[in-house]
Amino acid sequence: MPVGLSEPEVLLPVAGVRWGIATAGIKYADRNDLALMEIASGATTVAVYTRNAFCAAPVTLARQHGVATATRYLLINSGNANAGTGEPGMKAALDSCAAVAEMAGCKIEEVLPFSTGVIGELLPSERVRNALPHAYADLAADNWLKAARAIMTTDILAKGVSRQIEIGGETITITGIAKGSGMIRPDMATMLAYVATDAKVESVLLQQLLQQAVDASFNSITVDGDTSTNDSCVLVASGQADVAFVAETDAGYTEFAAVVTEVLQYLAQAIIRDGEGASKFITIDVQSGSDEGECRQVAYTVAHSPLVKTALFASDPNWGRILAAVGRAGVEGLDANKVAIHLGDVRIVCDGGRDALYTEAAGQAVMDEEEITIRIDLGRGSAQAQIWTTDLSYDYVKINAEYRS
Amino acid sequence: MPVGLSEPEVLLPVAGVRWGIATAGIKYADRNDLALMEIASGATTVAVYTRNAFCAAPVTLARQHGVATATRYLLINSGNANAGTGEPGMKAALDSCAAVAEMAGCKIEEVLPFSTGVIGELLPSERVRNALPHAYADLAADNWLKAARAIMTTDILAKGVSRQIEIGGETITITGIAKGSGMIRPDMATMLAYVATDAKVESVLLQQLLQQAVDASFNSITVDGDTSTNDSCVLVASGQADVAFVAETDAGYTEFAAVVTEVLQYLAQAIIRDGEGASKFITIDVQSGSDEGECRQVAYTVAHSPLVKTALFASDPNWGRILAAVGRAGVEGLDANKVAIHLGDVRIVCDGGRDALYTEAAGQAVMDEEEITIRIDLGRGSAQAQIWTTDLSYDYVKINAEYRS
Repeated sequence: MPVGLSEPEVLLPVAGVRWGIATAGIKYADRNDLALMEIASGATTVAVYTRNAFCAAPVTLARQHGVATATRYLLINSGNANAGTGEPGMKAALDSCAAVAEMAGCKIEEVLPFSTGVIGELLPSERVRNALPHAYADLAADNWLKAARAIMTTDILAKGVSRQIEIGGETITITGIAKGSGMIRPDMATMLAYVATDAKVESVLLQQLLQQAVDASFNSITVDGDTSTNDSCVLVASGQADVAFVAETDAGYTEFAAVVTEVLQYLAQAIIRDGEGASKFITIDVQSGSDEGECRQVAYTVAHSPLVKTALFASDPNWGRILAAVGRAGVEGLDANKVAIHLGDVRIVCDGGRDALYTEAAGQAVMDEEEITIRIDLGRGSAQAQIWTTDLSYDYVKINAEYRS
Repeated sequence: MPVGLSEPEVLLPVAGVRWGIATAGIKYADRNDLALMEIASGATTVAVYTRNAFCAAPVTLARQHGVATATRYLLINSGNANAGTGEPGMKAALDSCAAVAEMAGCKIEEVLPFSTGVIGELLPSERVRNALPHAYADLAADNWLKAARAIMTTDILAKGVSRQIEIGGETITITGIAKGSGMIRPDMATMLAYVATDAKVESVLLQQLLQQAVDASFNSITVDGDTSTNDSCVLVASGQADVAFVAETDAGYTEFAAVVTEVLQYLAQAIIRDGEGASKFITIDVQSGSDEGECRQVAYTVAHSPLVKTALFASDPNWGRILAAVGRAGVEGLDANKVAIHLGDVRIVCDGGRDALYTEAAGQAVMDEEEITIRIDLGRGSAQAQIWTTDLSYDYVKINAEYRS
């Protein structure tokens, strides 16, 4: 079961954005699997996509469309990732966009397509076409939670969050939803996130904000390092509130950017909390590195170590595994004698080995918690990085070994 | 159970090298856990060690001793890795070497220490001292298999191999043993290998040969990328046969180097076959890369993907997972449309997606085998790399989660 996660009780509407939901029967006959986001004209929309060379057809098309013109619609289906489908997959994605354009009377380039679900099967775009009028008729400002549910694949819980911030007497709303169940649910290709605000933000600034916020959120979580073919994150600034940002130095921008980042971090952590087979939520906090790059390198090496992950699953304060992972992370010239490692507030490693004051009982008390922070002090600089991950359990193997059977 | 592996029936003696075995009671009272290799004077000995920054005390000491003078003794204990033990660990390693030097009447720098077993507990060097006379009295040329057993930790089977090659009418023998159970048995720090030949080889040439052979063997296997604190591989050339090599261009050297590499590859693959929870032996063969580096990068990304590994465990021809792993391997400018992926002889991916001629039945037939080759053709050059790995099973999690409990 998800670790410390519950479904949002309320998701606030964002002026200028509406969602419509429908049942297209793409994989299952009886569930909502199609979500259409309508974006009012005058909004600015930016996105980041997977870096996987085998990116899915909708990602390729969304990239092309996104740079061409202002975006008016996002079309998202679950149940089929339309990835590894070659040229026919591109046609299916294009046909889905065309269906929206015909219905809404907009240009095809104003529609961005997104798909999530099984890899390697062609998207049945005629089913998308048939269901679209229902989604269109359903468009409403308060459909965020329904949208969060429609884009789920093997997620156990819907994920979403709203925040408000007051700037110059004006209230700005930021609402976001995401799906993804540990980055790597079997064939489910994988992480999609949609965030909107009613602030007005200049497009270059908005793209920069999204990239920074993604680095501090979705690019800082891992279950096992598998990057999916479909990962996408979209940020819409509708501009309907009476607050506009054109530069980082604008009054209130820092506070605004912090809240957007907070929304993305909440969603990213929600994905980890709902990770497959997850029984722990782990924060890995690397301090005192020479630069952020080496801090992330150490953090990911620890986070990806199956030895560390199985010890976390077993609630075993097996500090030797953490020490060995730090040692092999490839940090040039790392002085093992200067490294300190903490489990929660308990120091486990210093002076090149186990802290003389460390007791197994103290380590065990931290390990018994459901949420654990591993802090690694490299003792060579002032850079830091933080990432979030889960343990590796029987259920992980079960889910991934038996999923297609 | 180990995949396609059995214990060696015979290991040939190598003139100039003798092994003596004893029971020191380091972790268990009733098993051989101490092995002493005596090397006749005039031999050349070279070694490569773990790159882990938290390397164990014996590794630090062996590195120092190895460059100081000709090596006369290797002292190996199982049951305790003497890693993460700080300054007291260094003293224990030094004391063990001193005990050998006193007994054998050699210099302390002529002894190299090696330890394998639990991380973080101090080596009880007085037990090593007490048992040493028994090991010394036991020295014999035909003790290789006993040595292979004495250095085991959680290995299921002892690992060793002998090869002979005739050069200029003279027969050269190469015998090697190794321990290690998938690179990463819980706290067992991990891979040790000892190889000897009676050829005479100049020391710089021998070091170069060892490095190349290690790259093609122990550095080409992985269970999950965890590099231990104690990994060591030693190659002894006793010079007692009437064949001498001082340069790569010497007659017969190429053949000799090939057989040494073959011995190391056998031992490396034996470690994978005896890997924890392993039910499959997987060869990942990456072809047509721009350089060897990117080929290895792709191979390791596939080999470390828990999604691919759990699919292998389930005998599930889940080609989308292999495709996604190749795509995220970080090869700059990779053209997904030029990549081809084969499972055994069955092509599963081409033209950016599933091969139109591929059938699930054909993929399933390959996946049902115990030994599987995944071939990835990057379509951008002529470099290649090959590595060996295993699947990820329930038993892997069980072994690693429950080991200390």
